[in-house]
Amino acid sequence: MRTVFWEDNRVKMIDQRLLPGDFVIAEFASVEEVARSIKEMYVRGAPAIGATGAFGMALAAQVSPAQDRDSLLADLRQAKETLDAARPTAVNLSWGTARLLDLAEHTVTSNVDDLRSALLAEAQTLADEDVEINRRMGFNGAAVIPDGANLLHHCNTGSLATVDFGTALGVIYACQEEGKQIHVWVDETRPRLQGARLTAWELMRAEIPMHLIADNAAGHLMRTGKVDVVIFGADRVAANGDVANKIGTYKLAVVAKENGIPVYCVAPTSTVDLNLAHGDLIPIEERDAEEVILVGDTQIAPDDTPVYNPAFDVTPNRYITGIVTEEGICYPPFTQSLKRAVEAAQAKISENRQQRGK
Amino acid sequence: MRTVFWEDNRVKMIDQRLLPGDFVIAEFASVEEVARSIKEMYVRGAPAIGATGAFGMALAAQVSPAQDRDSLLADLRQAKETLDAARPTAVNLSWGTARLLDLAEHTVTSNVDDLRSALLAEAQTLADEDVEINRRMGFNGAAVIPDGANLLHHCNTGSLATVDFGTALGVIYACQEEGKQIHVWVDETRPRLQGARLTAWELMRAEIPMHLIADNAAGHLMRTGKVDVVIFGADRVAANGDVANKIGTYKLAVVAKENGIPVYCVAPTSTVDLNLAHGDLIPIEERDAEEVILVGDTQIAPDDTPVYNPAFDVTPNRYITGIVTEEGICYPPFTQSLKRAVEAAQAKISENRQQRGK
Repeated sequence: MRTVFWEDNRVKMIDQRLLPGDFVIAEFASVEEVARSIKEMYVRGAPAIGATGAFGMALAAQVSPAQDRDSLLADLRQAKETLDAARPTAVNLSWGTARLLDLAEHTVTSNVDDLRSALLAEAQTLADEDVEINRRMGFNGAAVIPDGANLLHHCNTGSLATVDFGTALGVIYACQEEGKQIHVWVDETRPRLQGARLTAWELMRAEIPMHLIADNAAGHLMRTGKVDVVIFGADRVAANGDVANKIGTYKLAVVAKENGIPVYCVAPTSTVDLNLAHGDLIPIEERDAEEVILVGDTQIAPDDTPVYNPAFDVTPNRYITGIVTEEGICYPPFTQSLKRAVEAAQAKISENRQQRGK
Repeated sequence: MRTVFWEDNRVKMIDQRLLPGDFVIAEFASVEEVARSIKEMYVRGAPAIGATGAFGMALAAQVSPAQDRDSLLADLRQAKETLDAARPTAVNLSWGTARLLDLAEHTVTSNVDDLRSALLAEAQTLADEDVEINRRMGFNGAAVIPDGANLLHHCNTGSLATVDFGTALGVIYACQEEGKQIHVWVDETRPRLQGARLTAWELMRAEIPMHLIADNAAGHLMRTGKVDVVIFGADRVAANGDVANKIGTYKLAVVAKENGIPVYCVAPTSTVDLNLAHGDLIPIEERDAEEVILVGDTQIAPDDTPVYNPAFDVTPNRYITGIVTEEGICYPPFTQSLKRAVEAAQAKISENRQQRGK
């Protein structure tokens, strides 16, 4: 089952806010609703958000009353703005919406229904490619995970963070497919607890040995020799290899480096933003106080406690051993290796599009 | 109001498990119940636990049916074992119980009621001294906190962690008394959320500017220049200055050092264990899975999720700028400076006891 998909002229997705308690498929029939699904985190995880953005654009074309190409393009540009604003840190979102707008702008047809069909097909392709890319990325990463390794994993980067299979968790699934005996320390990932709620749920379903830990326990495990590899995804990777990812990643990476533990970021090239020279140019989304103060129905701090709640942090490239992409593992200096990987991936997309065009 | 005190032949304490929602005074009439109050964390914080241990010993003497000195001493030795086992990491507990047993063993009297009275008086003195020691420690520490500083504080080390005033929070209260404008980043301190529940509550009552953060946000704040000092308490300090403290402390200290931010541990000399050469000899208590999986009534992970839940970690001395004690700030090499501080404190206790004896 995919995390986000198209059915009956609607964008459908697993409502991840309700996991692991309830498994509910939510449906969205307008661009504004799709933007809301991203903002309110029905769907999360950079690749899954990218696919959601693409399906959102396909939906925009379907519901647009436009009778001519220019009107449809105008509606698509408006839809892109609405969707992109939903989560400012994740570059995959604008990558997905841009890919569909780009297709619309470069498809030479005066038949708007043909254009609508082409956009939906492109969103489907993007989703299919995400699964295929994740599998390649997973096996690329698995090559550097020793048999018997203890991995420390942050946030959720699995099937639920992507269309299917996952990024950093994809590496773990690939290790399993290869028959490696591994064990995963799953940090809970406050404040939204994606590790406790989603990663624990995924790994237990996959029967991969794991223990849940409080985020605070990660340092103790690393210092006492119980972690062989630290692994996480990315919401955006700058051209120099600085990584914006779920808050807490930076602390993990610093402590890992201090203890001589390799740190791998697993991210498709769609997450790499070659236009950003370094990580401090990445906007860091701040979210509501309620995310920290309320855990379900339980209030954990006094009424009206002032809260600072950044959703992401930036890990400078010097703490990162390698960035695993679908085009192989990029090593420092990342400015060169990431550029090569992005160009290789773009060449493949162009080639595939040309082949489909034939 | 004191965190733990003696009244009506009972040990009474604020039930900290219920804060900030409810303010309840719990009463304990037997040694086993006092041990349970420590184990179940009605009371927590190394100095408060030390005073609780002392009151527990005084209670043991009161409730003992012993008619002669030897029987009473036997009951006290039994009580010490019961109490010390309640929390293995906190050295103050055995420090408090040992001080009372020592007094009993060295008080030359055949009147067991005199001995009972002497023990109760000693527990009261220990509690009074805790408050006085905390105030001295607080002002010692305040000397190195610049006006306008942003402090990052871990766990709860305030009035609630001591008999009154606090250790690391005592430094913050001392800054306030001195008229310094400071701001505190309060980390929530998963899994038991002492920061969110207790420190936020204390600082808001004291009207000291603060923001609550998820533990994961601390690194981002440090890297982006928003933290001037990291400050925390200790459950046990080894002779070489390695610090066992609430889980998560180690990660904070490593990231602070990486960012050139001074790290102060604030701990009375009763927390220093000169018999332990280094921190890896300190037993690390592991606690129940439920502490991680349940937040109030909210279950945050799937049923039967395996959990690893160490309550403390060890921060090696190289990450610590100074250890603030009631006898001044100890600087590296700690093996020398801590020994001097402990000896100075012990000399004062002997002197005071002699003066009271006159």
